[in-house]
Amino acid sequence: MAREVVYTVNVEFGDCDPAKIVWFPNFFRWIDAASRNFFVQCGVPTWTETEATRGIIGTPLVDTKAKFIAVATYGDTLYIHTSIPEWRTKSFVQRYRVTKDGDTIMECEEVRIFAGKREGGGIRALPIPEDIRALCD
Amino acid sequence: MAREVVYTVNVEFGDCDPAKIVWFPNFFRWIDAASRNFFVQCGVPTWTETEATRGIIGTPLVDTKAKFIAVATYGDTLYIHTSIPEWRTKSFVQRYRVTKDGDTIMECEEVRIFAGKREGGGIRALPIPEDIRALCD
Amino acid sequence: MAREVVYTVNVEFGDCDPAKIVWFPNFFRWIDAASRNFFVQCGVPTWTETEATRGIIGTPLVDTKAKFIAVATYGDTLYIHTSIPEWRTKSFVQRYRVTKDGDTIMECEEVRIFAGKREGGGIRALPIPEDIRALCD
Amino acid sequence: MAREVVYTVNVEFGDCDPAKIVWFPNFFRWIDAASRNFFVQCGVPTWTETEATRGIIGTPLVDTKAKFIAVATYGDTLYIHTSIPEWRTKSFVQRYRVTKDGDTIMECEEVRIFAGKREGGGIRALPIPEDIRALCD
Repeated sequence: MAREVVYTVNVEFGDCDPAKIVWFPNFFRWIDAASRNFFVQCGVPTWTETEATRGIIGTPLVDTKAKFIAVATYGDTLYIHTSIPEWRTKSFVQRYRVTKDGDTIMECEEVRIFAGKREGGGIRALPIPEDIRALCD
Repeated sequence: MAREVVYTVNVEFGDCDPAKIVWFPNFFRWIDAASRNFFVQCGVPTWTETEATRGIIGTPLVDTKAKFIAVATYGDTLYIHTSIPEWRTKSFVQRYRVTKDGDTIMECEEVRIFAGKREGGGIRALPIPEDIRALCD
Repeated sequence: MAREVVYTVNVEFGDCDPAKIVWFPNFFRWIDAASRNFFVQCGVPTWTETEATRGIIGTPLVDTKAKFIAVATYGDTLYIHTSIPEWRTKSFVQRYRVTKDGDTIMECEEVRIFAGKREGGGIRALPIPEDIRALCD
Repeated sequence: MAREVVYTVNVEFGDCDPAKIVWFPNFFRWIDAASRNFFVQCGVPTWTETEATRGIIGTPLVDTKAKFIAVATYGDTLYIHTSIPEWRTKSFVQRYRVTKDGDTIMECEEVRIFAGKREGGGIRALPIPEDIRALCD
């Protein structure tokens, strides 16, 4: 079974919109932090370090789908259960389940790549680094 | 064919991350603004007004999927082509195509609802308001 | 001496700009959360509750000044030391000192009010609620 | 008299908080964009370009003070009147006046520097580039 790492979020006043619920782009902010935190907890160095040593500048998103099941508001504590259920040749699937008081309120599944800089600007997908994969499995 | 409204975004320095490309949650910020702008351009009043007159507090997201095709950076101008290709009983599909220099760099398709407040907190889906639908078609 | 509450921030990749340092508006995001957290730690209820029971919708900002002393980047942990050194008739001063590895990297001093809704839209300053002040001193 | 450049902001739903007014850190987001826009309108190239050609990575903030005079909400259009009233040896003052319907609702005055990278991480203040100053005066 894939390793799971939990990232904790305290929902703040400013994360909520005039309807008094979390403004949804903030979920993606937290999911991106949970994605990064997953690698940190698995022992992967910062992207600043990997950029210098091997040209990996980060793990940008290629594709995402998300389902919003119940709302959250400020004062709530959310837990983002994060895993990588699937590795492909040049991409991987990262999965998130956000819970509040034990209930799942949001689910998200992404495809991400390990990116390097492309000559002339922009980024390109690098092959999955086997040592990083080994740390995360 | 469904009506299309275009929302323009000037990408700013602070919208970009250390990899010098747009940090993806910002795309969802803009898409939410494009969603709202669509209704404004169709003549739908503010949610503050609709809340007072008929209990509609907004159109929160139920479901979203997005594909990131090419990157953008600060200085770029993006155009978000927005439409509602499908109306259901208590929800609707809103679609976005983000272009830069004529190329599609991101696509997104959402399911949203018209929401009212639920007794005791939270929100609930209201039936699609026929007059608002008529304005948007 | 005024009570001090510490709010902890883990700086994320997306909080940083193309110069690889925290994009400064994020400091104000965190400071607003630290402001709110100060009241929570002192036992003040949520603004949703105070709005229902006594018309206080929050503590909006009137005035702020801040000094940026050193930069932070993702992976850093910041501590926001928060206090209310001064109470006035219809406003109060809230002070923040942000530290990283024991060094002060940012300082901020704000004037805030307890706000209620004004007839016809907008907000107005309410007299300092003595019971809330007593909780915070 | 110092040159003035106006930056326009359309306030969106997601820019507002549960009190239905603009969440103040968003003002700093817009002010940072207005700061950058000022240089763009004056003909200064992107920081990506200046970093490559002369080591200038941007104009980070050293010091800011702001006054919030009246609130704004979604649907409002704001105009940020931006100028550089003062140049110092290694820093400059940038001033902002935000108007809505002809009234000033926020004022801000910053000290910024032209920054280069420092050996071993972090940034350092560069002398004011005279050619950039000439473009902005």
